[in-house]
Amino acid sequence: MIRSSVDRLHPYTPGEQPKDPSVLKLNTNENPYPPSPAVAETVAALDPADLRKYPDPVATELRQAIASLHGARVDQVIAGNGSDELLALCTRAFVEPDGLIAYLEPSYSLYPVLGDIADIRREPIPLNPGFVADFSNVPAAGLFFLTNPNAPTSMAADPDAIRAFCESFSGVVVIDEAYADFADTHCLELAMRLPNVIVMRTFSKSYSLAGIRLGYAVGPASLIEALFRIKDSYNLDALTQAIGLAAVRDQDHMRRNVEKIVATRQRVTGRLVDMGYQVLPSQANFLFIKPPGIDAEVLFQHLRSQHVIVRYFPGGMTAEYLRVTVGTDEEMDEFLNAL
Amino acid sequence: MIRSSVDRLHPYTPGEQPKDPSVLKLNTNENPYPPSPAVAETVAALDPADLRKYPDPVATELRQAIASLHGARVDQVIAGNGSDELLALCTRAFVEPDGLIAYLEPSYSLYPVLGDIADIRREPIPLNPGFVADFSNVPAAGLFFLTNPNAPTSMAADPDAIRAFCESFSGVVVIDEAYADFADTHCLELAMRLPNVIVMRTFSKSYSLAGIRLGYAVGPASLIEALFRIKDSYNLDALTQAIGLAAVRDQDHMRRNVEKIVATRQRVTGRLVDMGYQVLPSQANFLFIKPPGIDAEVLFQHLRSQHVIVRYFPGGMTAEYLRVTVGTDEEMDEFLNAL
Repeated sequence: MIRSSVDRLHPYTPGEQPKDPSVLKLNTNENPYPPSPAVAETVAALDPADLRKYPDPVATELRQAIASLHGARVDQVIAGNGSDELLALCTRAFVEPDGLIAYLEPSYSLYPVLGDIADIRREPIPLNPGFVADFSNVPAAGLFFLTNPNAPTSMAADPDAIRAFCESFSGVVVIDEAYADFADTHCLELAMRLPNVIVMRTFSKSYSLAGIRLGYAVGPASLIEALFRIKDSYNLDALTQAIGLAAVRDQDHMRRNVEKIVATRQRVTGRLVDMGYQVLPSQANFLFIKPPGIDAEVLFQHLRSQHVIVRYFPGGMTAEYLRVTVGTDEEMDEFLNAL
Repeated sequence: MIRSSVDRLHPYTPGEQPKDPSVLKLNTNENPYPPSPAVAETVAALDPADLRKYPDPVATELRQAIASLHGARVDQVIAGNGSDELLALCTRAFVEPDGLIAYLEPSYSLYPVLGDIADIRREPIPLNPGFVADFSNVPAAGLFFLTNPNAPTSMAADPDAIRAFCESFSGVVVIDEAYADFADTHCLELAMRLPNVIVMRTFSKSYSLAGIRLGYAVGPASLIEALFRIKDSYNLDALTQAIGLAAVRDQDHMRRNVEKIVATRQRVTGRLVDMGYQVLPSQANFLFIKPPGIDAEVLFQHLRSQHVIVRYFPGGMTAEYLRVTVGTDEEMDEFLNAL
């Protein structure tokens, strides 16, 4: 009774969510600082009786605030139950059943799973040995997923290379900018100008709101409208819409937290380099590091035994590295001590 | 760049959500009473700082409470971002690309759209002229959607007929029991006993929580596991999980509200019959009524001009009827006066 492609697929494994509060959790790139005080005010002002009603199915007020932030029109914005919902919608909206989904490797390990769920052929494009994208290797495809800055590498691709690639590619390019608020550059102007580029953002990282599940996409109105046609009718609950609206209106709070994390990132990078670690140049809220004189997986287990949880991706180019979320200064000192 | 099946499809139209508070809104089967006081306590106890973390990806505590309520094992339960998410997952999990999705007509008008989104052939099975299902007309299919009690008719199918159909059908039967708490019977025992039956429930109606987007499915562990394999990784936000848990633990509150609505339903049915309306025997929190001596669509517009919004489904067997949500006694008196 189960579709054969579903029976065959290897599901995505989310990073562990340990419940033990004594664990130092540096494995899922959460923000160590609380969200805007406006979030607490929004929750306090909520009338639970209002929850008996359906939410706005198209999240109008939230999308207006996002559109205004980016100088876009509201019909160029869709909000989703996390970026994950929007990424999955793209696999169903922009590729024919006999089409192709391409993506870099290593990158967000959800992409191959999304291809398999959609039952559509997929092709990983290996990064160069220095973890740099060579877009000349990308074949013709209906959809290309580009995480920028990339995960788990933390590195941003060259903006000119991205632009040239998008202009030459015949399918839809989805640039997943989950970490863009921590980076020096972003690609929103491509989503505003080109007919085939969608940029995605999330509230899970820079806005400290992974718990509410909110992401959005900006792009050409015709592509955004296609995503609206196939989304669940009421995909965003009322609380998520209200909290997201409060958070996006408090850019100052988000920016201050980002600055703290970037400063900590610089400091920890220096310390790790001093200790002999290879640290890729991070444009995100995490570091991708290669330990000296010890197997990465062994180190991962050592850290775990000291209640420090980071992320290890076995196999391929990532096997010699650990991905470490940038926490508070105190947390990172604890991490450095554990190392 | 848009998949041709997406370009062609007619999207689902959710019931209107007017913002004008002077409108009497009887069009989307919301519960007129507030949710359990435990919901307000849960929201008040929330630490917004916790929202920086990802939620439990598999909603363990909530699913345990639901499983315990129904005497099921936790691996027989999946929770979703509204039942709509789970219904859509079924179209992707249980039908091969060249398979068939069948459903009654009239019924929940989302089903044909879900078939079109999945790009899978679909076949509506007309109800008899008395709006009764004749399951002998159902062809072999990978998936059959059965809303019971049905919408928009409000009527429940004969339990023996449902049981016999499920036992003879070779594909998966999804029994969407959104309104079962308002009915005299339900089909959970089929989901616990048969290898091909899934029962869905929602927090949107009897629990007064349409705003949080929460539904769940109960069924054989192998089918439930297939839905887990293809859902979005973190499909349920932290607040929805916490609020749903509080609500499901307060069965008394939900039952009291259901009793009030059922009593109002009986009273309004009597009044309408006295006024010459044909009223189908409702097992749900709404009435499906045929007005005497006036076109249903004309009456719909008349009510609208008096700020009373009900639901009208043009075309086919539903064109002579209006669907009216059962509100409070005061609201229904206002509705009767407007009629």
